[in-house]
Amino acid sequence: MTRPESPPTWLLPSGFEDVLPARTEALEYCRRALLDLYAQWGYHQVIPPLVEHLESLLTGSAADLDLQTWKLLDQDSGRLVGLRSDMTPQMARIDAQTSSAKELRRLAYAGTVLRARPDLLGGSRAPFQIGAELFGVDGPEGDLEVLSLMVESLIHCAVPNLLLDIGHVGISQALADAAGLEGALRADLLQHVERKAWPDVRAWLREHHCGTELSADFDVLSRLHGEFDVLEQARQRLGHHPAVCAALDALHFVWGALRVRYPDLAIQCDLSEIHGHRYHTGLLFSLFGPQRGEALASGGRYDDIGAAFGRRRAATGFSLDLKPLLRDFPATERARQIWAPAGTDELLWQSIQEHRRAGYAVLQDLVSQEIPDQQTLRARGFDAVLIREQAGWKIRQLDL
Amino acid sequence: MTRPESPPTWLLPSGFEDVLPARTEALEYCRRALLDLYAQWGYHQVIPPLVEHLESLLTGSAADLDLQTWKLLDQDSGRLVGLRSDMTPQMARIDAQTSSAKELRRLAYAGTVLRARPDLLGGSRAPFQIGAELFGVDGPEGDLEVLSLMVESLIHCAVPNLLLDIGHVGISQALADAAGLEGALRADLLQHVERKAWPDVRAWLREHHCGTELSADFDVLSRLHGEFDVLEQARQRLGHHPAVCAALDALHFVWGALRVRYPDLAIQCDLSEIHGHRYHTGLLFSLFGPQRGEALASGGRYDDIGAAFGRRRAATGFSLDLKPLLRDFPATERARQIWAPAGTDELLWQSIQEHRRAGYAVLQDLVSQEIPDQQTLRARGFDAVLIREQAGWKIRQLDL
Repeated sequence: MTRPESPPTWLLPSGFEDVLPARTEALEYCRRALLDLYAQWGYHQVIPPLVEHLESLLTGSAADLDLQTWKLLDQDSGRLVGLRSDMTPQMARIDAQTSSAKELRRLAYAGTVLRARPDLLGGSRAPFQIGAELFGVDGPEGDLEVLSLMVESLIHCAVPNLLLDIGHVGISQALADAAGLEGALRADLLQHVERKAWPDVRAWLREHHCGTELSADFDVLSRLHGEFDVLEQARQRLGHHPAVCAALDALHFVWGALRVRYPDLAIQCDLSEIHGHRYHTGLLFSLFGPQRGEALASGGRYDDIGAAFGRRRAATGFSLDLKPLLRDFPATERARQIWAPAGTDELLWQSIQEHRRAGYAVLQDLVSQEIPDQQTLRARGFDAVLIREQAGWKIRQLDL
Repeated sequence: MTRPESPPTWLLPSGFEDVLPARTEALEYCRRALLDLYAQWGYHQVIPPLVEHLESLLTGSAADLDLQTWKLLDQDSGRLVGLRSDMTPQMARIDAQTSSAKELRRLAYAGTVLRARPDLLGGSRAPFQIGAELFGVDGPEGDLEVLSLMVESLIHCAVPNLLLDIGHVGISQALADAAGLEGALRADLLQHVERKAWPDVRAWLREHHCGTELSADFDVLSRLHGEFDVLEQARQRLGHHPAVCAALDALHFVWGALRVRYPDLAIQCDLSEIHGHRYHTGLLFSLFGPQRGEALASGGRYDDIGAAFGRRRAATGFSLDLKPLLRDFPATERARQIWAPAGTDELLWQSIQEHRRAGYAVLQDLVSQEIPDQQTLRARGFDAVLIREQAGWKIRQLDL
């Protein structure tokens, strides 16, 4: 047996990549467009660190992130630190540290998060996460604002044919509460619901003697997905649970408003969807592009996440990974590009600088003063050249 | 003895911080201004990953970074990976992988680098590094371009009263070569020179029987710092070493051109300065702000760094940490801010969106429809409110 050669030094670890100029331009364009959009809505960007104490990153409701979080030993303190795998808990920490208890707070963020393992086989371990979080509003008006901003985000990134999927963890939770379930038993049942393993849910309820009425309710729940009228069906069939009605009211409110704001947006609901129910506490939302499949943006309400930092606050928000959006992003318009000859002639320098200030990209040849032929210049992306004339330097357009 | 309590979860590891909205705005402003500047000079941004195989990050001439580099075990491959502590070796790798051998290549980058320990006691472990690298130009025209771009960078970040310090590793190296020194002995001598420990240099030369002439040359070298005329002195006193003359020619070329380009820029040289001489191969430069002390930007030539990636190429570049620049950065002009009442009224929504598209920041109150008093609104940074009129919604300026 031969020992495998170690891979060449230029191979990157799986799930990591270089983003080269064309994609970087698109990423930078979207990044700026979104941060500017968020500022127009009052969401101010903050930059939390890439590294934090593990307890902060995984505190309370963020414990789900444990397996995804890369751990390191900090030689300065001897303590375990982690690389952030999600910026939402960082926003909750910053809100807890820098907001007053009653203040409404809007925060935005953009940065790389790192995953010890990818979400999907062969997926990225370095998503570029961008998002917005709203603290201090417990009504559905808050959810409506972040939902609208999430939709605006994908519109700004030129994603066509959007589909919004909404849900509410409160409905399944109300049924579990009706059965009087608590602690590990409750978690056990909700795990079956999360996997949408309805035969397991039925068997579990039978086994735990939860009664036929509750079993019927879960049967109903399993079929409550589709268009707007599903909300009315739910109210008729599960309206005897007051908490279900409250959840349906919130869904009805945001759905109605979104229909007015974005008449072209396809919306559907799945009332048994409770992904992330260990930290989500209300509305849940996912936004899909034309390929459907994986959600391009997602979020929801998570009112308790700040508790570990000493401030339990209403909180709702969303985030998205910019990188997958770039695949279909139209080419951005690039600045006109001018070729300039080598040399330190003062007038040449002034002319180069003037054209740069006027918004051109001017690339000085650092070796040769001879103008390459037009075909070569065109192939290298140039639109014009700087040439010497009696009085100084002038721009000359290339022929098409 | 009582065991120390573990620190509260909201404390960050030493050397890490949150950048809150006001500083983030300044950082984002500078970041965009610099990336746009680099694009105008033809330097296209690329985004290398935060994590790479350790061999790539520390390869060849980057081995100096070993102690600064945080190591992690990649559970996917079982190999050691590292968090980048400098983006320059990543640029050399990208150049080697994506450029043809003769092509001139300009690359720019901006991102966080992470340090296992800070450069200075109490310093940052997460500098925001931004910079530009030029590959494929071995003449001083290349150094002049990146030097000019480095100066432009700090001008764009509103740093006044700049001082440029230039040097050239080739001068000390020419003297060491004249002594016929190689390998460990040569490194030993240059280490004394790097520390500017001139008595140690003298003792070392005596001990190694290098002759009085060389010792006199090093004595001369130790005094060669100051204004432009130092170059002429050096030529007179050390001109018998051809490699010294070549280095002086390069210094003379860039200094002369920079005087024309930036008449207000203070320039000085220190010809015995050889920091980083293990990877630098030519000109060295550091740019200081009004406080002098630590350089705000620095760079130099490092022609051999790409060798480990299979392509030995001429290379020169610079980088800077944006964070220290923000201390004195003037407040950026913020968008005018409008308060809007709560509600899902369609005309209100349209008015809010129109004002956002027109460049205002519109913050909708998500709880109350009642306009707060002017003083409260002013204190919260608002300039105007949206109020209902017969025909729809209108903007009303707040009194000053």
